[in-house]
Amino acid sequence: MSEPGDERPRIEAAEFEALIHETIPLTRLLPFRVQELGWGTATIRLLFSEQQLRAGGTINGPTMMTLADTALYAAVLTRIGMQPLAVTSDLSIHFLRKPEARDLIGRATVLRVGRRIAVGTIEISSADGPLVAHATGSYALP
Amino acid sequence: MSEPGDERPRIEAAEFEALIHETIPLTRLLPFRVQELGWGTATIRLLFSEQQLRAGGTINGPTMMTLADTALYAAVLTRIGMQPLAVTSDLSIHFLRKPEARDLIGRATVLRVGRRIAVGTIEISSADGPLVAHATGSYALP
Amino acid sequence: MSEPGDERPRIEAAEFEALIHETIPLTRLLPFRVQELGWGTATIRLLFSEQQLRAGGTINGPTMMTLADTALYAAVLTRIGMQPLAVTSDLSIHFLRKPEARDLIGRATVLRVGRRIAVGTIEISSADGPLVAHATGSYALP
Amino acid sequence: MSEPGDERPRIEAAEFEALIHETIPLTRLLPFRVQELGWGTATIRLLFSEQQLRAGGTINGPTMMTLADTALYAAVLTRIGMQPLAVTSDLSIHFLRKPEARDLIGRATVLRVGRRIAVGTIEISSADGPLVAHATGSYALP
Repeated sequence: MSEPGDERPRIEAAEFEALIHETIPLTRLLPFRVQELGWGTATIRLLFSEQQLRAGGTINGPTMMTLADTALYAAVLTRIGMQPLAVTSDLSIHFLRKPEARDLIGRATVLRVGRRIAVGTIEISSADGPLVAHATGSYALP
Repeated sequence: MSEPGDERPRIEAAEFEALIHETIPLTRLLPFRVQELGWGTATIRLLFSEQQLRAGGTINGPTMMTLADTALYAAVLTRIGMQPLAVTSDLSIHFLRKPEARDLIGRATVLRVGRRIAVGTIEISSADGPLVAHATGSYALP
Repeated sequence: MSEPGDERPRIEAAEFEALIHETIPLTRLLPFRVQELGWGTATIRLLFSEQQLRAGGTINGPTMMTLADTALYAAVLTRIGMQPLAVTSDLSIHFLRKPEARDLIGRATVLRVGRRIAVGTIEISSADGPLVAHATGSYALP
Repeated sequence: MSEPGDERPRIEAAEFEALIHETIPLTRLLPFRVQELGWGTATIRLLFSEQQLRAGGTINGPTMMTLADTALYAAVLTRIGMQPLAVTSDLSIHFLRKPEARDLIGRATVLRVGRRIAVGTIEISSADGPLVAHATGSYALP
């Protein structure tokens, strides 16, 4: 199997944004932009809104989990192409710092694409700021 | 330290619903009802809406992660009282089945409350249906 | 697919002990006994030895992780039969208390057996004592 | 708090090897060498032995979990100094490929050291070979 860097991503940013917008209505409330797609990598910017806050004025956990899942989904699709029925099999996230009220950046990297499972990591940072969460997850491939 | 069953929960259902509704606006789109609170346990029903779907017509992962996090939050607060600044430290979730388009039930059980960290598990089922996800998480205590 | 309780376990205790003893030499240093096998469940007792200690005189993490993995392996094989090439796909463990220097009991329960993946949980307790760790893991099925 | 690169590691390789050798007897069967220590980083080489194999002739999961835990322990101690009573709070590992019968390299990186918890990741590779596992874990600080 090809390694990261060998090939071009099999999806395009606009195509992925449309897929998510159409098929996962929840994310309409968590609007995001695909900033970069590579071969097994994706960088996604989640635009801040007050909906994302929690007690204390920092961004809540479910918002970060949604960003982690979405970024990994994009990174997996760069390898396997537009297969909407790939589904998350597991996700494990550690929260490192309470994120301030600003955009978040999620950077996903696929570590391995097997026949049945793809595994990758996601780093979430505040825009122009520190790392706020780290996640690892698997997608079951159709 | 007291064991489950020894004491009464330190929060009430309406109080928790109001806390979440006020401090985590995102959950207004994922309306839920607290069905039961015990000493270190919480059962929460997430009311279905089409916003929760994903490609294929099943409920998406972020919705289940949000339910898991909310149910564990409630279960932790039954032990420590209304301390809104308790924050998730980590969450690990395995998705077992694609949930049909109906309400979800999240049952959280605290396994351990230490001085600094509380750990618990969450089982998510379809209403009147099978287990669809299992999660484990930690809360950092203020 | 059958539910827990419907059927008899597809492996026997002595058979599993022999499999592990022969194929995973490391576990010769962590001798265990299968105490109970059900349909998708396994209870395993890890016999204490001083090899399992760490600084502070409590049982170390790798010993508990090995017990968790072994107990889940047994529980999965009760459902699929003696398929030694089933391999762990992921394991997530939370340590709840420092276990005293005595036997540990690992109770594994399979939550779901799919075509490709089995998922289950493992509770680890001190013999006659409290819960000391909780784990969740997946096995990739051959 | 200082960032990686700002400071010198607060432990030395020989000192860490002695700590582990003395306080975690199990690891005498999984002999390792500290190859590099930085500020919040550690690279550890686990020397292959047949004890580490499993059915199929590849290295077993518990061996990789032990390496992950040990490498993260070293990386945490480079930040906080020789505090043997730091204990693993949780560990989540994904297995990516079955490792061949040869040495394994574990590279741990601390993502965050708080007052109470340190979080980091560990990449495990076959010596001169591919990535075989990825883990994330927390240590509770004394």
